[in-house]
Amino acid sequence: MRILIKNTNILSMTNEKENIMENINICIEDGKIKHIGEILEHFTPESIIDGRGKLVMPGLINSHTHIAMSLFRNYADDLPFWPWLTEKIWPVEEKLIAEDVYWGSMLSIIEMIQSGTTCFSDMYFFMDETAKAVSESGIRASLARGLMGQSADDLDRINETIQMYKNWNGKADGRITIAAGPHAPYTCSPSYLEKVIELAKEYNMRIHIHLSESKKEIEDSFNNYKKSPIKHVNDIGLFDLPTMAAHCVHLSDEDIDILAEKNVSVLNNPGSNLKLGNGFASIEKLLKKGVNVALGTDGPSSNNNQNMFEELNLASLINKAINGDTTCVPASTALKMATINGARALGLESDIGTIEVGKKADMILIDLNKPHLYPKHNFISAMAYSAQASDVDTVIVDGKILMEKREIKTIDVEKVMYKAEKHAKELVSR
Amino acid sequence: MRILIKNTNILSMTNEKENIMENINICIEDGKIKHIGEILEHFTPESIIDGRGKLVMPGLINSHTHIAMSLFRNYADDLPFWPWLTEKIWPVEEKLIAEDVYWGSMLSIIEMIQSGTTCFSDMYFFMDETAKAVSESGIRASLARGLMGQSADDLDRINETIQMYKNWNGKADGRITIAAGPHAPYTCSPSYLEKVIELAKEYNMRIHIHLSESKKEIEDSFNNYKKSPIKHVNDIGLFDLPTMAAHCVHLSDEDIDILAEKNVSVLNNPGSNLKLGNGFASIEKLLKKGVNVALGTDGPSSNNNQNMFEELNLASLINKAINGDTTCVPASTALKMATINGARALGLESDIGTIEVGKKADMILIDLNKPHLYPKHNFISAMAYSAQASDVDTVIVDGKILMEKREIKTIDVEKVMYKAEKHAKELVSR
Repeated sequence: MRILIKNTNILSMTNEKENIMENINICIEDGKIKHIGEILEHFTPESIIDGRGKLVMPGLINSHTHIAMSLFRNYADDLPFWPWLTEKIWPVEEKLIAEDVYWGSMLSIIEMIQSGTTCFSDMYFFMDETAKAVSESGIRASLARGLMGQSADDLDRINETIQMYKNWNGKADGRITIAAGPHAPYTCSPSYLEKVIELAKEYNMRIHIHLSESKKEIEDSFNNYKKSPIKHVNDIGLFDLPTMAAHCVHLSDEDIDILAEKNVSVLNNPGSNLKLGNGFASIEKLLKKGVNVALGTDGPSSNNNQNMFEELNLASLINKAINGDTTCVPASTALKMATINGARALGLESDIGTIEVGKKADMILIDLNKPHLYPKHNFISAMAYSAQASDVDTVIVDGKILMEKREIKTIDVEKVMYKAEKHAKELVSR
Repeated sequence: MRILIKNTNILSMTNEKENIMENINICIEDGKIKHIGEILEHFTPESIIDGRGKLVMPGLINSHTHIAMSLFRNYADDLPFWPWLTEKIWPVEEKLIAEDVYWGSMLSIIEMIQSGTTCFSDMYFFMDETAKAVSESGIRASLARGLMGQSADDLDRINETIQMYKNWNGKADGRITIAAGPHAPYTCSPSYLEKVIELAKEYNMRIHIHLSESKKEIEDSFNNYKKSPIKHVNDIGLFDLPTMAAHCVHLSDEDIDILAEKNVSVLNNPGSNLKLGNGFASIEKLLKKGVNVALGTDGPSSNNNQNMFEELNLASLINKAINGDTTCVPASTALKMATINGARALGLESDIGTIEVGKKADMILIDLNKPHLYPKHNFISAMAYSAQASDVDTVIVDGKILMEKREIKTIDVEKVMYKAEKHAKELVSR
């Protein structure tokens, strides 16, 4: 499809000084950004978008979530962590069926598109259903079957991952990537982790794992292995593979050095870390050491939304407060965490994450004509500190319009809300 | 005006167990909630609102802001605090003219109405302009001329307050209240504060003041007065008047005891405290001691928005994180801070802050038919953890509809955006 975005403004999120371009045109063809500037001669768009009063920026990348958990959104809040997990979440997860995961995934994909997210990285189960939802909806995703196991012979979930890889990797016009998803060092034994490493090496998969989320996890790791979770998995060889490490709230200086040296991408989830009482991840320290830090919402049952504008705002504000320094994680850094750094975490930085000729056309148009975005002193500040999810007007993924003027084109929104409600209610009383 | 809201759901924010009422009607007459239940016989509404799929809750109360500062929104961010204040904000404030304050106030009032705020408490200058904007727009407000002075003879601003009181207190159908606004103990000498106390006693005004916002303020107070800012102003007698104390980030146990004993209302501004690097106010401790804690956004140049849904979410999340306890500041408490506690801070708890028969009709209707509010497990969690400003569908203040289906009825929104942009740009180049 050929799309022309006319007379618009661009926040490219490239590192050039000319990050902002005003009154300019974008030509999209074959899923890619073909041209930025004057409208190309002989370019015959099938769709023309009026970009006046809009800001085009890269689609946001939610680097860590469990989207099917939208079914448990607002189901169990303000409870102590362990009763929440063991008495509320695990019992309903036990009862989940494939169809629940499909509708929960669809509900989250609508929420993500409506709030400007064009790509996400997920870890859960019944992942075939999430892949189907990704394929149908037009969004982009990295998907990992959550892996837990005590012995290298626990092959069920590993075989599911292989099947997922064969069925889905590179499918949906290349919008789906399959990753290996060892859940955490406290749910995977060392021998099981070694098995997962073997799997990931064989299929050239990235690793998606939870690391150093709670203080208890750190204490348990020292009790069991006499070292931190980061050092523990590094010693096993996990970081020899490109790794996305979710959370990393509690880190020693040595941990940070390991993450930097091994080029591990940290997936920061400020909203979830606060809500689950895990504390404040000091991103500032990681960034100073050159670690790639991306942003995620975590699952919608521990957030309870998947609004990346909220997360990038939080990441900036929290780091200013913990360091007592207003210059920490400035607006531009927070926006990078939500775009190009996310792309880097997923290994997709040459395809997405910035608005540049040759990259895939994954972009969002922000409606600047909102009272809370006035006066127009600075677009970058406005996007980090004032923008709301509902300012996202239009969403394009892989050169296809998924939402235009806030109307979702690829999904029957009313049907999904009805089905998600039905499945959620059935599930809790199943 | 007589308004009927039909077949709706109510989150009353009363302390009763029956906080949530479903499929119910509200009759509004003469600015007040006349009846909740079956539609009254002989009630002849002039306006009927279809409340299906909506949640009626009390309008949010922004207890601390400087609304005209919307003109400096996104003007100077990510700078160290003192250069920000002395090189950026103060120089433009020096050049402010009355008309700037009018358009800046109008811009903020639109933002507040669109995000569900029906009442605010402001401190700034050219307050006649803000009062005009309140009067015209239909919102409710407590207004205080910011007072700074070194000697009891610095009468200019005090006389302005008296004039404001005479011109505006109880005006606009009683929607405007005038408070005395000593800026802070570091900008008001003890003798000046005594003069302000005298003023407030004479006119029966409440006090609105900034207290214990930054670590530097505490250090300076100990250097100058050998005590904390809280103890200092209490010893002068300030807390013998009903007081709204903004910020209170850095408090000793003795400070908290004073605030509790003197029934001081604390106005918590989590977004601003984070963004300006001042840290995390531990609301949990204050609540445990029975202190009334309300919520505010602070001025839009240090936030950079006036979205109370964001603040109440932050208040809950931050307190869970600093205490490492997921049960801290649960959803219902955060919502109380943004409604009835705000009303209490302003001395308006018998008029507003809950949905009850006899109270003034200050209420908002939330559109529950949004993907990010599904499934409908729990309305209270949904409002605190998932709701967005743009979910506010309809806003009623003093029994008058200010916004219906997101259309503002009382203000020419396009004109205000144009004028605010013009004044902001002229101001910075003046």
